[in-house]
Amino acid sequence: MSNLPPENSRERAKSLVLSLQDEICEGLEILDGEGQFEEDSWERPEGGGGKSRVMKNGNIFEQGGVNFSEVQGKELPPSILNQRPEAKGHSWFATGTSMVLHPKNPYIPTVHLNYRYFEAGPVWWFGGGADLTPFYPFLSDTRHFHSEHKKACDSINTSLHKVFKPWCDEYFYLKHREETRGVGGIFYDYQDGSDVLYKGQNSNSKAAQISKDIGKCYMDWEELFALAKACGKAFLLGYGPIIEKRKDTPYSDTERDFQLYRRGRYAEFNLVWDRGTIFGLQTNGRTEAILMSLPPLARWVYGYKASANSREALLTDLFTKPQDWFTDKSLEEKCRPHQALD
Amino acid sequence: MSNLPPENSRERAKSLVLSLQDEICEGLEILDGEGQFEEDSWERPEGGGGKSRVMKNGNIFEQGGVNFSEVQGKELPPSILNQRPEAKGHSWFATGTSMVLHPKNPYIPTVHLNYRYFEAGPVWWFGGGADLTPFYPFLSDTRHFHSEHKKACDSINTSLHKVFKPWCDEYFYLKHREETRGVGGIFYDYQDGSDVLYKGQNSNSKAAQISKDIGKCYMDWEELFALAKACGKAFLLGYGPIIEKRKDTPYSDTERDFQLYRRGRYAEFNLVWDRGTIFGLQTNGRTEAILMSLPPLARWVYGYKASANSREALLTDLFTKPQDWFTDKSLEEKCRPHQALD
Repeated sequence: MSNLPPENSRERAKSLVLSLQDEICEGLEILDGEGQFEEDSWERPEGGGGKSRVMKNGNIFEQGGVNFSEVQGKELPPSILNQRPEAKGHSWFATGTSMVLHPKNPYIPTVHLNYRYFEAGPVWWFGGGADLTPFYPFLSDTRHFHSEHKKACDSINTSLHKVFKPWCDEYFYLKHREETRGVGGIFYDYQDGSDVLYKGQNSNSKAAQISKDIGKCYMDWEELFALAKACGKAFLLGYGPIIEKRKDTPYSDTERDFQLYRRGRYAEFNLVWDRGTIFGLQTNGRTEAILMSLPPLARWVYGYKASANSREALLTDLFTKPQDWFTDKSLEEKCRPHQALD
Repeated sequence: MSNLPPENSRERAKSLVLSLQDEICEGLEILDGEGQFEEDSWERPEGGGGKSRVMKNGNIFEQGGVNFSEVQGKELPPSILNQRPEAKGHSWFATGTSMVLHPKNPYIPTVHLNYRYFEAGPVWWFGGGADLTPFYPFLSDTRHFHSEHKKACDSINTSLHKVFKPWCDEYFYLKHREETRGVGGIFYDYQDGSDVLYKGQNSNSKAAQISKDIGKCYMDWEELFALAKACGKAFLLGYGPIIEKRKDTPYSDTERDFQLYRRGRYAEFNLVWDRGTIFGLQTNGRTEAILMSLPPLARWVYGYKASANSREALLTDLFTKPQDWFTDKSLEEKCRPHQALD
């Protein structure tokens, strides 16, 4: 592979995700106004370790966790080797940060972020993304979150967002519910700057098709590093204003109950479909850190159906299906009667 | 295969599980005193259908579901064909009933039951079991539930319980927590009366070893039918008296919170480890019926630790590890200080 990482690639990637963790935690504490993150560190017998930070019962956040880890191992698991056969027989290094925040107010969306970097013998790659899961969605919030992430992607290469947006819709998908987890954001994996952008498993998907149409899209290590940095910074820019705008919206038990019910979907996605979670749990990962993403409280109700044309039905009718948030003008007409525009 | 089912095997199996569903629902309504099951029926495009019955906000049961189904298909999924290669290329028939009940009072355990019958070309088999998941466990309740199921097994063959009890501990196991789901009960699968009793996937397990030591244990269709019937009847005999004994035990928010926290484990098991649930969700099963087992309300708390020597710690120290409930006399000494004997 001619596209080599710099000498100090591991340290730089580690310090990037560490400072992302720091900056985001600091920003979230300011947004919350009351809650503080508590940190605990851990080591991994095989090599490496991490820092988990948790906020509980904040003013805004009911529960939220921000993980950092830097780990090493002898050989990558088969699920990754399938995608990166050149890594076989090599020891590996990985560093990343991940986070899920569960706000109390049902008008503030739940949100997730993850950026990570891998090296294994001759191969290296970046992966990551962020996605938003509203309960009572607004079109303006959705567009704002997407717009900040699009800007970050575009600052590196204007082809990226075209692929990473549908890839996110496809990854965070609950097949058994025929729903996306939320309104999406961006998702990318196995980015080593070679060949086409889409390197996922579903070669018939929309993201794969768009990527094929774009054709080869070469990036070097520095560009992919800058991408992770820009997208990481887009997180607070995208999420912060939504919190500010929605935090004082009053709500009743009805909205709270619906939020708890929808949080059940979040648990379903993470436990049934999220490759990282399942892989971690089945291979003796650090359970508490892996399951930090689960909601502090969730409901399941047999046979729940939102009444037709309700604010609750709008979520599944419109906001948990892949949409062209910027260009589809019919979305406005559909949201207007529900006061879900702005 | 010389051990043939009777002519009317499908109708008899179906009517067995249907009457189990009826009897148990009736018994549960009497125990609850207020809650009623509501039924909805469904059909399956490939053939067959079912009846789901749900009780919500009863006096005893916060939520509970009892499913019946009778389904047919062209070819069994690979996960089952692995265990029953003779069924390959044959259409199949399956009928069964399953149930999970989530009581409100944390002193009453959650409980699960499932009995099912399969035919596919030259092969047929019975499977099933029942297991108890207490939050504030009592040794006497645990022994009573096991004792009723042991009696039922012994009424057919005194070797059965020796294998089905550890098989249950092994099946309902959360590897990522190093915990059993609860105090167990019985579990069996692929019972066609041939060879040894244990037909699970882990040939090194305790159940496998005991089964090997017992040696071949032939049963005919009638005996296996009678086993399902006897075990099905053991359910109310085993669970009913526990409800009666615990239903008026007062509890505070502390106990309720701990129950909701432990219900998170129930969701984790069902979504991460339960083969039936995962298979159903990944193959477009009827989602609402499959996920009827999930708790009406559950909590996740990062880094929760019960204080040493507490009633809460007793659950994970003792009651979510496989135990010889009848013969291990040290259990009494461990339970006595916590008033968890009777």
